[in-house]
Amino acid sequence: MELIFLGTSSGSPTKSRNVSGLALRKAGAKPWILVDCGEGTQHRLLHTSLSLNRLQAICITHVHGDHCYGLPGLLASAAMSRRSAPLTIIGPAALQDWVNATQEATHLTLCYPLHFIDVATLTERQERVAVEGFNISALPLSHRVPSFGYEFVETGQPQKLDVEKLKADKIEPGPLWGRLQRGERVTLANGGVIDGRDYLLALRAPRKIIICGDNDNPALLAERVGSANVLVHEATFTRVIANKLGAGPQHSSAMSIAQFAAQASVANLILTHFSPRYKDGGPGISIRDIEQEARAHYGGNLFLARDLEVFHLDRAGELSRTEHGPPPSRG
Amino acid sequence: MELIFLGTSSGSPTKSRNVSGLALRKAGAKPWILVDCGEGTQHRLLHTSLSLNRLQAICITHVHGDHCYGLPGLLASAAMSRRSAPLTIIGPAALQDWVNATQEATHLTLCYPLHFIDVATLTERQERVAVEGFNISALPLSHRVPSFGYEFVETGQPQKLDVEKLKADKIEPGPLWGRLQRGERVTLANGGVIDGRDYLLALRAPRKIIICGDNDNPALLAERVGSANVLVHEATFTRVIANKLGAGPQHSSAMSIAQFAAQASVANLILTHFSPRYKDGGPGISIRDIEQEARAHYGGNLFLARDLEVFHLDRAGELSRTEHGPPPSRG
Repeated sequence: MELIFLGTSSGSPTKSRNVSGLALRKAGAKPWILVDCGEGTQHRLLHTSLSLNRLQAICITHVHGDHCYGLPGLLASAAMSRRSAPLTIIGPAALQDWVNATQEATHLTLCYPLHFIDVATLTERQERVAVEGFNISALPLSHRVPSFGYEFVETGQPQKLDVEKLKADKIEPGPLWGRLQRGERVTLANGGVIDGRDYLLALRAPRKIIICGDNDNPALLAERVGSANVLVHEATFTRVIANKLGAGPQHSSAMSIAQFAAQASVANLILTHFSPRYKDGGPGISIRDIEQEARAHYGGNLFLARDLEVFHLDRAGELSRTEHGPPPSRG
Repeated sequence: MELIFLGTSSGSPTKSRNVSGLALRKAGAKPWILVDCGEGTQHRLLHTSLSLNRLQAICITHVHGDHCYGLPGLLASAAMSRRSAPLTIIGPAALQDWVNATQEATHLTLCYPLHFIDVATLTERQERVAVEGFNISALPLSHRVPSFGYEFVETGQPQKLDVEKLKADKIEPGPLWGRLQRGERVTLANGGVIDGRDYLLALRAPRKIIICGDNDNPALLAERVGSANVLVHEATFTRVIANKLGAGPQHSSAMSIAQFAAQASVANLILTHFSPRYKDGGPGISIRDIEQEARAHYGGNLFLARDLEVFHLDRAGELSRTEHGPPPSRG
């Protein structure tokens, strides 16, 4: 599985970091999912191999502009590239009205259907949305406006026949086993009918990634994060700045998310959504301050995302940074 | 006067060209005006000396997304940079509703007032909007949706006393002349009252720049363009591609705008808004094809704009390209 960071700045873009956008796909696969779509997300995509024609779903964490103002332009460009497949958008219900209002005001006609799913309803009903390669579910977070995290569980992993169970049920080896392995229903010689899906074992547990929107209360993730391989979470401020700003912004500090991740035994933690006041280099406060604060409280596998970086989660659950996207100097 | 191109692609951004955006200011001055605001305009501004706090007015030529989808993010970032001065937006009325809908859906609170002016009304009433340094008026063009050109006439140029007229009116030299030069009303020894503004001559004619939105009928500019120093106009396609696409898109070809500019004796012509199919280099059709076609029909001072290029119009009306913005390779 791959994570491709398209934007890692909070609020406003900087020269080297765009506002929020994060792509998820199975390694080497064409279909992909977008989490958040800040202004300029489509510009970042031009520097990746991701195609708007293979985008399966867009998950928006909350309505703040730095997480959704890139939506109209991305939808328009998908239409210009002659996309015809339906596109699922999961997000706050207000976004559907906004997209409709945008289409009307700007005479934007899309040549493919949009399928909106209200993330609040999805969360309340504890439902999952299946797209190619993943099941998507959501969980509520805490922010100035309703904000959500998305959980992506891979589907379609290879399976093998449960030979022990077949033997216990006295089903002898033969051509029938091949049909059971394909998940078919089979009629036995004795007239009984069995379902192949009852005799299949996953070769490994499905991998799971949780990607969160803005959130000042990491403890809300406690129940879900234990089984996740990766947690992507905001760390907008260091503790000093967070304390200075007070409770108003409702963001996490590096310390608060790191402490939670340590307590919850999160295996891989990627921090993102950094306030533009933290620079990538030079004098003054920098992203390194956020990193140092997080490392002081969390001893696991920690990364601070940069734009256009690609992370690879292998089948054993090991996360590694596979590409260093040098901060773009212009544009 | 300076023109700073922020985006020169039509429809969708490319790696080297953003969608429409163009800044205008007096050379070296802080106040500036923005014409069109495609997605990513605020990102481009990060690579200029233009400040959102000194933006006087935004003029939107028409409602298509590649000319306005950057508006919400730019307004939000101006708020985050603590702008307090009112901001004038001139454009189609539908944009005001869209900005309102966007503010509501995305909980965007601006800490400065927006002052909307409907460009259609402005045009019908032949009114001007005065901002620092310029008078702005508009004229209707021809496109799939109502589209407009904006005319910027400089104000505040130095003036001198009309000595001939003073002598003819028998107003003798003295301290009174100083007051007249400041444009004051003055009572004469004989009891008569005269107005200094009646005795002032501009040291030179005000410079005038016309910047157009999408338009398939350059002849609509005939009445206004004669007195302009610079015309900025779209040349979306070469004639071959324009013919292939038919009348539907309602854009100008390089040939059609060049022929018009030649007939109308336009002194300086800057072309922009190029279809992404024209590349900046490499094999296949390129921006050079548009340039060659335009040069074949127009012998004046011709430029094809690139992103982040700065054009300088001097007091004698000479236009020159003062900075070559190398196309950004990433981001």
